[in-house]
Amino acid sequence: MLGSGNVATHLSLALINAGHKIIQIYSRNIENAKVLAQKCDAIPIDDIPLLKNNSDLYIIAISDNAIADLVSKVDFNNKKVVHTAGSVSFNIFPKSITNSGVFYPFQTFSKKRELQFLDIPICIEANNADFEKFLINLANQLSDKVLKINSEQRKYLHLSGVFACNFVNHLYHIAGNLLSENNMDAELLIPLIRETSAKMKQLSPFEAQTGPAVRNDKESINKHLDLLSSSPEYQQIYKLISDDVYNTHNFIT
Amino acid sequence: MLGSGNVATHLSLALINAGHKIIQIYSRNIENAKVLAQKCDAIPIDDIPLLKNNSDLYIIAISDNAIADLVSKVDFNNKKVVHTAGSVSFNIFPKSITNSGVFYPFQTFSKKRELQFLDIPICIEANNADFEKFLINLANQLSDKVLKINSEQRKYLHLSGVFACNFVNHLYHIAGNLLSENNMDAELLIPLIRETSAKMKQLSPFEAQTGPAVRNDKESINKHLDLLSSSPEYQQIYKLISDDVYNTHNFIT
Repeated sequence: MLGSGNVATHLSLALINAGHKIIQIYSRNIENAKVLAQKCDAIPIDDIPLLKNNSDLYIIAISDNAIADLVSKVDFNNKKVVHTAGSVSFNIFPKSITNSGVFYPFQTFSKKRELQFLDIPICIEANNADFEKFLINLANQLSDKVLKINSEQRKYLHLSGVFACNFVNHLYHIAGNLLSENNMDAELLIPLIRETSAKMKQLSPFEAQTGPAVRNDKESINKHLDLLSSSPEYQQIYKLISDDVYNTHNFIT
Repeated sequence: MLGSGNVATHLSLALINAGHKIIQIYSRNIENAKVLAQKCDAIPIDDIPLLKNNSDLYIIAISDNAIADLVSKVDFNNKKVVHTAGSVSFNIFPKSITNSGVFYPFQTFSKKRELQFLDIPICIEANNADFEKFLINLANQLSDKVLKINSEQRKYLHLSGVFACNFVNHLYHIAGNLLSENNMDAELLIPLIRETSAKMKQLSPFEAQTGPAVRNDKESINKHLDLLSSSPEYQQIYKLISDDVYNTHNFIT
């Protein structure tokens, strides 16, 4: 396992749960490598030449922007190697590598949260059919939802996650701020947030849309914009999303 | 029950579950009144003069913008009356009414979804202490989370719900669109959406924030903006929220 961050941590533990062994944890920072290595009963290393060359699979789970550099420093030619990054193309691997691929679990990972891998979609891409089978077989041991996704699709999948997770989380932050600034507890939001996300199993977000913008209730919208007058950024976000909700529901193309 | 929409429906059923009786369902549209009246074993009416004047409580659960008009048409002077609207001030009731108040369940309601009222915050406001007690007592029969919230706070509570529910739902819609436009199933988002909302019980959204914007990963941000070049609205939303994520996490005041 090359990496010791959120994805590396969760994926290592899931692989161990499925009966696999993690031999080494590589990180540029040996302390980080040690933390994860201890959980995995693996050897922590911080130096590329220490990488053993008899592993069944090398998993690169480091920052997206550091992958190219790492790939250039390790001889993966006769090995099996994958990266786990949503936004990094398959082409980052040189064609000289016999077995290269992508093993992308589509989820948000925090070290502080335990996760069940079983329903996390794992997106597979490989440079040949045998290695694809190998990766699909491995992914099936961790998850019920294994898909072949090519690099072009994976870019959009990753982007959709930015909207549905990163941006959504920031809207939770804004909502919590509006409450705490007015002496209310941000925890009041939890049932609403849970129901909004749970609806998606039953209704499409298009069908489930409620609120002033979809009704074109200009009076409420203007009152809200007034309430936000001391937060021009929140006001802008409110206006832009409301406009897009209105346009989505009233000018369907 | 004055109203037959989402809130009126869920609240009527919750009251019946708690052992209360709904006498009449009023709606301007008698067909809508009939649908809910049948579920409640109540009498549907569409004409204000038909309202019986011996009910223990009159609940106005109609569109926010129609409440003032309805209040002006009914003699509530010696009755107990509440509205259920987040964004409508308590002052909408004339001072001549002996017992007036607000009974605001902070949740998103769809007729197609069943809901447990037990964890829905119910926000109470009343024009006198006895009626406040009456409403708190009633709310406690439906929910474990009953709070006194004044009209000024309630405005911000409602606004926070627009961000955490209506806008979040629209981001789900955008994310789903990005997938379907690229031949992927929007259902792929469900585990991610569920985990993003579930995190909030354990981590604040500030702590839980991940993604390119919080890392100031300009390379990924620019790639994403390129992918969105055919959807200028999505591009604008991406840019604005990313900027605000970055500013929130890097210029903490």
